[in-house]
Amino acid sequence: MSEKPSPLFTFLGGNEGPWKVLRAEAVLGKKLPDFAFLNILPGPRESHVSKLATWRHSGAVSHERYVLRREHEELVKKQEGLGRPQATLAAMILISKTPQWWAFSQDERRKIFEESSEHIAIGMRYLPAVARRLYHSRDLGEAFDFITWFEFAPEHSGKFDELVGLLRQTEEWRYIEHEVDLRLIRA
Amino acid sequence: MSEKPSPLFTFLGGNEGPWKVLRAEAVLGKKLPDFAFLNILPGPRESHVSKLATWRHSGAVSHERYVLRREHEELVKKQEGLGRPQATLAAMILISKTPQWWAFSQDERRKIFEESSEHIAIGMRYLPAVARRLYHSRDLGEAFDFITWFEFAPEHSGKFDELVGLLRQTEEWRYIEHEVDLRLIRA
Repeated sequence: MSEKPSPLFTFLGGNEGPWKVLRAEAVLGKKLPDFAFLNILPGPRESHVSKLATWRHSGAVSHERYVLRREHEELVKKQEGLGRPQATLAAMILISKTPQWWAFSQDERRKIFEESSEHIAIGMRYLPAVARRLYHSRDLGEAFDFITWFEFAPEHSGKFDELVGLLRQTEEWRYIEHEVDLRLIRA
Repeated sequence: MSEKPSPLFTFLGGNEGPWKVLRAEAVLGKKLPDFAFLNILPGPRESHVSKLATWRHSGAVSHERYVLRREHEELVKKQEGLGRPQATLAAMILISKTPQWWAFSQDERRKIFEESSEHIAIGMRYLPAVARRLYHSRDLGEAFDFITWFEFAPEHSGKFDELVGLLRQTEEWRYIEHEVDLRLIRA
């Protein structure tokens, strides 16, 4: 049996952390409580309860849910990792999808996600400028279904806005009922 | 925004609970610690830490991952729910899949799961005799990736053994690296 690394990470909003919040916007639904800095630490929510934080949310780095093998190969070829020195800006986008979305079967969700909304194809156009990591939170009973974390250089800030603008016009986004968009800079 | 019910449940093995363990077998890999009774309670692991238990494992009831709409419709038509009075026997099957499985893309996993292994089609033949609920645990950082809970009447015990026997011969099962099979009876 393979050793299992923990898939869990906890996002902590408070008075300290390597990322400083530039702005926080509720695109749809309630906003987050105010905080000035963000920290992302390995481990479940309970391992960080002692830390001073005004906001806490956990997520799991997990396997891909909709990507096909040929898409995966293309993504791997084009994308770069987090932590690049020039990528001093970040975005944390939190979303929850509607009960109707979750009641769809796999083929229906894939069809909306890619064949209609081109979520993967659109994202691909912004590689390698925008690096990305998805955290799954729905099965953890958290407030949001997903947190997507993006890192990019200041000169790609406009490109990133274009990317989220395109995604928000898709059919997939009709199934989003809560969305918060935070922009951050390395502190 | 819709109110989100918690998807989490915790399995507690110890000296009390509505299900009595008849036998526990490690099909592949390590067995569980010994316990005589099992309880399944709503909520995350941390909400049950005060309870006396020799074994504890949480899981989330989540959306379907491989089932297509037409398969879903057929399942819904044929399956019955948990808690039927005549279904006095249960099985709890815990499995973890290999890193290779999780590195596959969605189309590769679906192909092995159904087009090769006929996981859904085989299960369908045992409906409505065998009722079933799947709990997802991998993203929670738990020891097993899944717990599947089955309930059936004593006269369908042989059928249930046939079902798990068929599944264990499939291509999908080559990607299973840990499997424990517990049989239980209503206490």
